[in-house]
This record gives sequence, structure tokens and C-alpha cells, in this order.
Amino acid sequence: MLKNYSDISGKNTGRIEAIADGIFSVGLTLLVLDIKVPYLESIHSESELIKAFCALTPRFLTYFLSFLTLGIFWVGHTTQFSYIEKSDRRFNWIVLFFLLSVSLLPFTTAFLSEFIQYRFSILLYWFNIFLMGVLIFTCWEYAYRNDLITVSDKEKKEEIYRIMRRRIITAQLLYATGAALCFINIYVSIGFIILVELYYAFGMINIKKK
Amino acid sequence: MLKNYSDISGKNTGRIEAIADGIFSVGLTLLVLDIKVPYLESIHSESELIKAFCALTPRFLTYFLSFLTLGIFWVGHTTQFSYIEKSDRRFNWIVLFFLLSVSLLPFTTAFLSEFIQYRFSILLYWFNIFLMGVLIFTCWEYAYRNDLITVSDKEKKEEIYRIMRRRIITAQLLYATGAALCFINIYVSIGFIILVELYYAFGMINIKKK
Amino acid sequence: MLKNYSDISGKNTGRIEAIADGIFSVGLTLLVLDIKVPYLESIHSESELIKAFCALTPRFLTYFLSFLTLGIFWVGHTTQFSYIEKSDRRFNWIVLFFLLSVSLLPFTTAFLSEFIQYRFSILLYWFNIFLMGVLIFTCWEYAYRNDLITVSDKEKKEEIYRIMRRRIITAQLLYATGAALCFINIYVSIGFIILVELYYAFGMINIKKK
Amino acid sequence: MLKNYSDISGKNTGRIEAIADGIFSVGLTLLVLDIKVPYLESIHSESELIKAFCALTPRFLTYFLSFLTLGIFWVGHTTQFSYIEKSDRRFNWIVLFFLLSVSLLPFTTAFLSEFIQYRFSILLYWFNIFLMGVLIFTCWEYAYRNDLITVSDKEKKEEIYRIMRRRIITAQLLYATGAALCFINIYVSIGFIILVELYYAFGMINIKKK
Repeated sequence: MLKNYSDISGKNTGRIEAIADGIFSVGLTLLVLDIKVPYLESIHSESELIKAFCALTPRFLTYFLSFLTLGIFWVGHTTQFSYIEKSDRRFNWIVLFFLLSVSLLPFTTAFLSEFIQYRFSILLYWFNIFLMGVLIFTCWEYAYRNDLITVSDKEKKEEIYRIMRRRIITAQLLYATGAALCFINIYVSIGFIILVELYYAFGMINIKKK
Repeated sequence: MLKNYSDISGKNTGRIEAIADGIFSVGLTLLVLDIKVPYLESIHSESELIKAFCALTPRFLTYFLSFLTLGIFWVGHTTQFSYIEKSDRRFNWIVLFFLLSVSLLPFTTAFLSEFIQYRFSILLYWFNIFLMGVLIFTCWEYAYRNDLITVSDKEKKEEIYRIMRRRIITAQLLYATGAALCFINIYVSIGFIILVELYYAFGMINIKKK
Repeated sequence: MLKNYSDISGKNTGRIEAIADGIFSVGLTLLVLDIKVPYLESIHSESELIKAFCALTPRFLTYFLSFLTLGIFWVGHTTQFSYIEKSDRRFNWIVLFFLLSVSLLPFTTAFLSEFIQYRFSILLYWFNIFLMGVLIFTCWEYAYRNDLITVSDKEKKEEIYRIMRRRIITAQLLYATGAALCFINIYVSIGFIILVELYYAFGMINIKKK
Repeated sequence: MLKNYSDISGKNTGRIEAIADGIFSVGLTLLVLDIKVPYLESIHSESELIKAFCALTPRFLTYFLSFLTLGIFWVGHTTQFSYIEKSDRRFNWIVLFFLLSVSLLPFTTAFLSEFIQYRFSILLYWFNIFLMGVLIFTCWEYAYRNDLITVSDKEKKEEIYRIMRRRIITAQLLYATGAALCFINIYVSIGFIILVELYYAFGMINIKKK
């Protein structure tokens, strides 16, 4: 018998996936609003315009960084949901909190690009990634423990569970290392994180050949 | 025989769900635009930056508040539509008006975060939630009375109908209580509403064990 | 045999519907950005805040107007596509141009709310609606003439075609009348258009009872 | 046996299509934010308002240009995915990088409309189109070489592959020609690109009759 709201709500993974794709795509597109076009009045020649454009480099850097970050978490999220076909109300909320951390990224990115010479801004940015990591990890753990992962072969299910878990933990360790590097130099720190992300995006290029 | 536009339009719940997810996800993401990065010129050291960041606390508070609000109404909306598979033109419009109230929330949130020390801004914010409540309630009543709820078991259908109705009414009573508290203190008022929302998001944690 | 790009592209109505829902939902949400929160510095008491809020009335008016406009065209568009299951490349482009006219509405709305006392702004707004009307009409005509409307019963198909066509033409005549009223008074003009739209959204309330 | 993350992630083309539609529709709608409403204070009569509106012409021009550009790439992208039903992790990332280039277009458009009299801005705009072209080409090549194109008839598959490839290359040659024209005159250059795009959108109007 149905007793209360939790018995009837949040069963639908299709809608969670739809709102996640919506939030990720708006987030990815909002990032570009942070790269502001120079003022017309301050420019008087082609060379001044090129110079003004080049001055935007740090903003392109943080834009690229955040695009990679969101891309990596989006791939992780879709991977999880390709094995999750059931849901419950609490799982809905865990995913919503994950999406909250995702929707904060355009802010921490703008903060970083404005204050790129300050250590605090890279630590704040890292904290955002850390939050996303903790929450996507919680999604996965919750799904595993509450039997929301629908893989019939039990052994295969365990394998998938372990690969995903290991992957999130390793990535977070690398991000934390990258953030710690800001105490040496902030560009080294950002460079390291971008390298880690490019490795995650493209790194295992020789896998298929094995 | 088909006589007019109402006979041919608004049958599709898939499209309503798509536009609802779109509006919710854009709304959720726009909220962050309200948290503005401090001006570069006004900052001269790490400690000044941290101080400027901490000054954003009220905006994070209203951001978090509105994320919870939208999340709760989104879960409610998806729950309703997991039982609604038919539609008609007037139902389309009731949902559109509900979405209108949803799309106003980024404005009332920005208003609240700018004028957090004024009672009028919390009352306006509450009025937005009240409007959303009235309209999601109307959706549900309309769907019930026009046989759009597709649950074959009649008794189960009645139960689902009653759970959802009770839930909306209770929540609205709590929100109204929260808003009324602003006549004592505005932070008590916001705090109360956040607590209510956290309770709705996570509260019934021991349900499954029953 | 496949000869060129037109033979292979634009067959998918699912994707057209997805991008249409995306553009409509972003458009509907962007409208609210036009209602700007008053400046903190200019407000010193609750009554000043209420006064500043009331000064936003024209913006709420145009917001409501544009929400209705977009809602009406969205319902029209989904209705058309509930009978269209095939597509070709040119049809894709006609729909894209319709969406272009949709995406302009946040601009003409902002223009109208800023210059609500000028006749030109209401005529510009009307021209936007007219453009949307011409393009949604073209969609429907193209779909009809190129056999994209998939209704097996031929007579029923003719009826659906005629209802939709009549509906667009009548609405456009009423919009044009509304716009013409701006030569008498601009608020009469806007009021008339809102009444027409409310009639279209809710008007035929007694249909079912017939 | 599953070994690592690449074995379990990125299989889902449905999600790629969803995020692509999201990014395209937000991008298409953000373009309009670049057309700014004139300041109320600077306008004192209907004729001044009309004059101020006409001064926005370059912005409408770049808006129209970018709408066509995004439309063309969106049609190209959906066409590719109507033949792609499988995916892998690297393909996900190639598409994400394509979407990165798409999400940059609102920036390069704003840059162009602000600095329309400077050659650098049209070259930057062209470079954005070139980037989109290279990446959509890479998508298609990758899909072809890794057997992600699911057309059972082998000959037909080859034909589709060749038509799409030829099409991208021809278009890019025309865009490059258009960009090169900026060394003569920037409006000739933009006009040429718009003509090319209109040709691609509507050009092959007599195909069906053949």
C-alpha cells in the first residue's frame, strides 16, 4: 500500500537525465559569457584590437579548463546512468545536489579568471571540483547499495562498480595535487589540472589496440 | 468529427515534459548569475579577496534556498507526470502558467538577495512560492478531474491523488508559516524555509525501513 | 541512388522538436532577465522598496504578454508536430527560421518594455509576432504540400489542415487589429493583444461540454 | 572482461544528441542578448527611436549570420547522428570539442558586431567557423573509421560518407574565400558568407524535381 510521497515520487530516470543534460548544456554555454568583448572606445587600430584580444588569454584558459571539467563530469554522469534504470526520491535529490555543484562552476570559473593571480581563487575552484567529485561519488555509492544499477551479470556489475569508484578517487587525488601546486605557482597549478583533464579526455588512446 | 483547434492540439505530454525540464534547468543555472564576482580593482591582497568572498554569503544563501525550491517543485512536477500520460489543450496551458511562476523565481531570488534586510522582499519571494504551489495544485486537480491520471487500479489512483494533494497543502502551510516569521526576523524566516525544504528533500529518510 | 546532401539530411523530426523545445524554454526564461532588480543604494525604507517594485509594472506586463505569445506559438508548433512524423532538409530550415523569429522575441520584448510609451516599439513587437505567424504558416503549408503530415484518414487530414490554417490566419488578423490600436493608445493596444491571447489560451472553455 | 573506464563509458548517443541540442539552442538564443536595447534617456521622439533602432543594423546582420552558421552546423550534426547509433568514449570527446567550438560562436559574434570595421574580427569569426568545420569533419572521419556508422548496405554507406565529406570540404573552401575577401572590404566579406549560407540553407531548391 502506498503511504506517502516517497512511495510515489522520483521513479523516473529519464527526467533526471533530461534536467542533467539541460543544466550541463546551459552551464557549458554560460561559460563563454565570461569572456567579455573589449570596449569599442578603447580601440583605435587593428594592432590595438589584436592586443586587446590577446589580453583575454587567461579567460580563454579558464574557459577551456572549465569546459574540460564539465565535459569529464558529464561523461562520468552519463556513464553512471547508462547502468542505472531505476530511481527513488532520495536518489533524485542526491543527483540534484550534484547538479547544484555543477551549476556553481560558471561562478567559480568567473572568480578564477578575474582573480587568476590569487591563490584563494584556485583553491575555491578546486573546492568546486572536489564537491562535484564527492557528490558524483555519493550518487554511485547510493545507486550500488540500493540496487539501482541494473546489470544482470553479477560479476560484471561488481567490475563496473569498482572501475567507476577507482576512477573518481584517482581523479580527485590528481585534482587535489594540482590544487596544492598553487602554493608553488598558480599557472603551474592550472596547467597541471588541464594536463590531468586532457589525459582523462584523450589519454587512453592506445586502449583499443590491446 | 474534429471541430476546432482544441480538438487537435495539446495531446502530447512528452513535449510538456521537455519544455518543463528546459525551463527548470535554465532557471536553476541562471540563479548563479546572481552571485557576482567582486571587482578586481577593489582587491589588493588574498585576505581582502577572502573577505570579499565572505561578503557574498547572503547571495549563496538565497542561491541555495532557490535551488532547493526549484528542486522540490521539479520533483513534484515529475512525480505528477509519471502518472499523467494524456493531455488536452487547457491542461497544457495550466502547466505553462505553472512554468511562468517557475521562470519568475530567478527574479524574486535576485530581489531577495539584493534587499535581504527588507521584509517586502521575503514576502515577495514567498508569494512566488505560493503561486507555484497554487498552480501545481491546479495541475493535479485538473488532471484528476479530467481523467488524465492513468493508473488502472482505481483505489491506488485515489491514494496517489490524496498523497500528492496533502503534500502540496502541508508544504504551503509550512511556507506560509516561514514567511510570517519575517515579522519577527528575516533570517529566522529564511532559515525556517530552508529547514522545511531540507526536510522535504531528505527528511523521510527512515521511510524505507518501515 | 543518393546524389547529394539533401538526400541524406534533415530526416529527423525528433531533433527538430528537441531544439525547438530548447529555444522556447531558454526564450521563456530569458524574458525574466528584462525585469531588473532596483538599485540597493536608491532604497532606504520598506515603502520606497514597494514603490520601486510597483514601478516595474510595465515590465511585468510585457513579460506576461511575451510569455503568452511564446506559449501560444509553442502550443501551435507542438500541435503541428504531433501530426508530422517525416521531414526533409528544406522543412528543417523553415522550422529553423521560425525558431529565429522566436529567438528574437526577448529582444523585441525588452525594446517594448523600455520604450512602452512609443508607438514604434509596439509596431516592432507586432512585426515580430507577424513574422512568427508567417513562418509557422509556411511550416504548415510546406508540410501539407509535401506530404509530411502523417494522418492515414484523408478526410481527417484535410480537416486538421484547415483548422490549423484558419486558426493562424484569424489570430494574425486579431494581432494586426491590436497593433493598429496603438494609433489610438498604446495601453489599449497591449491590453487588446493580451485579451486576445488569454482568449486563445483559455477562451474555448465550454468546448468539451458541447 | 572489463578493464577500465573506457570500456564502460560513452556508449550512449542519445545523451550526446541531448547535450548537443541543449548547447545549440542556448547558443542560438544567447545570440540575441548581443542586440542591446538603446538607452531610454537618449531618446526623445519616435523618429529618434527609429533612428536608434536602425543603428542596430550591423548587430542584426551578425545575428542573422550566426543564426545561419549555427543552423548549418546543427543540420550537419543531426545528419551525421541519424547514421550513427553507436559511440565510444573518445567519440564522445570529439563531439564535446565540436560543441566547445559551437559554444564559442556567441563570443566571436559579439566581437564581430562590436568591431565590424576591423579585419581582425572577421578573421577571428572565420577561424571559429574553421574550427567547427575541422571538428565536425573529425567526428565524421572517426565515426567512419571506427565503424560507428550503422548503415547495413555497404555501398550506400560509402556514398553517405563521401557526400558528407565533400560537403564539409566545399563549405569550408567557400568560407575561407569569404574570409579572404575581408582584405578587399569587410561588408563584401560578410555578404559573401551570408550568401554562401543562404545557398546552403535553401540553394538546392530544384533537387526534388530532378
